[in-house]
Amino acid sequence: MQAAFALYRERGFEQTTVADIAKRAGLTERTFFRHFADKREVLFAGADALRELLVSTVAEAPASLAPIDAAAAGLEAAGALIQEGREHAHQRQAIIAASAELQERELIKLASLASALAEALRRRGVDEPAASLTAEAGIAVFKVAFERWVDDTGRQELPRLIRESLEQLKAVTAGR
Amino acid sequence: MQAAFALYRERGFEQTTVADIAKRAGLTERTFFRHFADKREVLFAGADALRELLVSTVAEAPASLAPIDAAAAGLEAAGALIQEGREHAHQRQAIIAASAELQERELIKLASLASALAEALRRRGVDEPAASLTAEAGIAVFKVAFERWVDDTGRQELPRLIRESLEQLKAVTAGR
Repeated sequence: MQAAFALYRERGFEQTTVADIAKRAGLTERTFFRHFADKREVLFAGADALRELLVSTVAEAPASLAPIDAAAAGLEAAGALIQEGREHAHQRQAIIAASAELQERELIKLASLASALAEALRRRGVDEPAASLTAEAGIAVFKVAFERWVDDTGRQELPRLIRESLEQLKAVTAGR
Repeated sequence: MQAAFALYRERGFEQTTVADIAKRAGLTERTFFRHFADKREVLFAGADALRELLVSTVAEAPASLAPIDAAAAGLEAAGALIQEGREHAHQRQAIIAASAELQERELIKLASLASALAEALRRRGVDEPAASLTAEAGIAVFKVAFERWVDDTGRQELPRLIRESLEQLKAVTAGR
């Protein structure tokens, strides 16, 4: 939805209406609403695909992997998907950073990603509270790696930053 | 603010107005708004005290403590404060669990607690990304412990559940 992204960047998210987006894209508003519940959803349309990739990668990870490493495999796969759409992700991030409402929505999506990850781990036979702790810690790693990736001028790849952040988490929880 | 809590439980948060709360409490609406920005803030008024206790405990923790253990000291102190107001915390939780809007607000408050904890760790000389990772992992521990505490019928104390959850996080990140 390039038209919406362009308008959000030009005018700001709050100042853009669905009528503006439809006009710019050469669509009717009705057509817009067939694809998106509201103007916010344009920015979160990729969340379902991300969650499905995370969950399926965790499900298919070798049974021999420890829960934290199965979670990491899923998060790295999600990171690789974001990396592929690098330009889109950076534009999206700039729009979200400019709006408190969108930042809140992003936090809620991250929390639902943590729930989906915990559920995927329970299906691998991980007990509670280990499944929830592993999932929350995994999402913490993902969040910190993503922030580094967005700020990074050295153009490091996101899956690599996720792996590095996990190693750092292992170090800090070991008391180092 | 017992009047507001009672009404939220009787009628639900969405169905209660500030006029209802003021009437029940024998106050004018004007007096209500001198203490709270809106009806939601009645439920989040304790967040500042919690954050200050967390931050000051981390600041005053012995310099010899590893970052994760300094964070844990702060979270256990915050947990002890919640434990003291146990009845209030349980009533509050039941109100929040019934409203999507309030659950979102709670997530946002947790995210700002994570930011405050990361800042407290940086002031102890912890570098990035270790400070953010430790803080996010600490809040993950706190969140999981808090959920166990709320669901618990065995009446375990919250600071103890936080300590246990931290030990479990150490185990899962060590690949166990």
